[in-house]
Amino acid sequence: MAHIGNGVEYALHCLLYLVGRQAEAAPSARDLAEFQGVSPSFVAKLFTRLEKAGLVRAGEGVKGGFRLARPPEQVTVLAVVDAIEGGKPLFDCREVRRNCVLYRDAPPSWATRGVCGIHAVMREAEQEMRQALARHTLADIAAGVSVKVAPQHLEAAETWFQARAAARGGRPGEGKGTAR
Amino acid sequence: MAHIGNGVEYALHCLLYLVGRQAEAAPSARDLAEFQGVSPSFVAKLFTRLEKAGLVRAGEGVKGGFRLARPPEQVTVLAVVDAIEGGKPLFDCREVRRNCVLYRDAPPSWATRGVCGIHAVMREAEQEMRQALARHTLADIAAGVSVKVAPQHLEAAETWFQARAAARGGRPGEGKGTAR
Repeated sequence: MAHIGNGVEYALHCLLYLVGRQAEAAPSARDLAEFQGVSPSFVAKLFTRLEKAGLVRAGEGVKGGFRLARPPEQVTVLAVVDAIEGGKPLFDCREVRRNCVLYRDAPPSWATRGVCGIHAVMREAEQEMRQALARHTLADIAAGVSVKVAPQHLEAAETWFQARAAARGGRPGEGKGTAR
Repeated sequence: MAHIGNGVEYALHCLLYLVGRQAEAAPSARDLAEFQGVSPSFVAKLFTRLEKAGLVRAGEGVKGGFRLARPPEQVTVLAVVDAIEGGKPLFDCREVRRNCVLYRDAPPSWATRGVCGIHAVMREAEQEMRQALARHTLADIAAGVSVKVAPQHLEAAETWFQARAAARGGRPGEGKGTAR
């Protein structure tokens, strides 16, 4: 499995559909999953994490879908990666330097002082990767997408999500699902 | 498992022991594993990959251990990561953008043109990570280690590897192992 997994990919695609969406067409996790042809149960788990990280907010009741909890300019790709992956490290140092046979299970202090030189390189690489992810936001990815998307697709998507939202909350007691 | 796995960590630690080592004390993969208290079979596999990538060279016969195939200034951390991990990507794009329910299994050309905006951010982050790994070499990590290592440890290590090399090739026909 890649370091930045498909959960991040799906989450970002879902979040892009929340950028600029009207409150009355706020989609549920199921709506977003079905619209994009991915697993609804997987997307529901992703939204639990995104909500916990303060990136999205769920509306009340069966009618309430998800909205961004912050302006898209303030949602970095790094924040989404950390919300979904839980900040897993690029490199998991096992402190091999402690194990040298000459130390007989008692490594001297000079051998374990500071960060291992190999680990330090990995940390630098991770930091560079994270800085690149932090430079990009939902807003700028959405701007890039909006340049190429066909206007009629945007309208059709809006209509689709509004119909879904209406179906969920249109007739009280007969909603076809919850926001989750 | 972390993206840059423990194979890379072990390989780098082993390679550091090859920097500046005398040809007559060239260690086998087993020597390097036992010296560092890690699995000999795992280290043997790592050396197969390092040799295939042209980073190390095995001496001939039972006496021959491993040496660096290039000066340590020319062995980047990136080269070791790629040799061990096989250049696995940071992010494995599933092209979610093709699956929108509105396309009915036939995504329009505008929807799949160029690299997906999300994938582009991940590629940039990967590139930054790789550039950081390419900035560091075995030589500079070894220089950092040499500042803190106790001189008597270097001598003891040299003695240990020479004894091992002698035991492998000292009495023809009775070598205790091969270079691998």
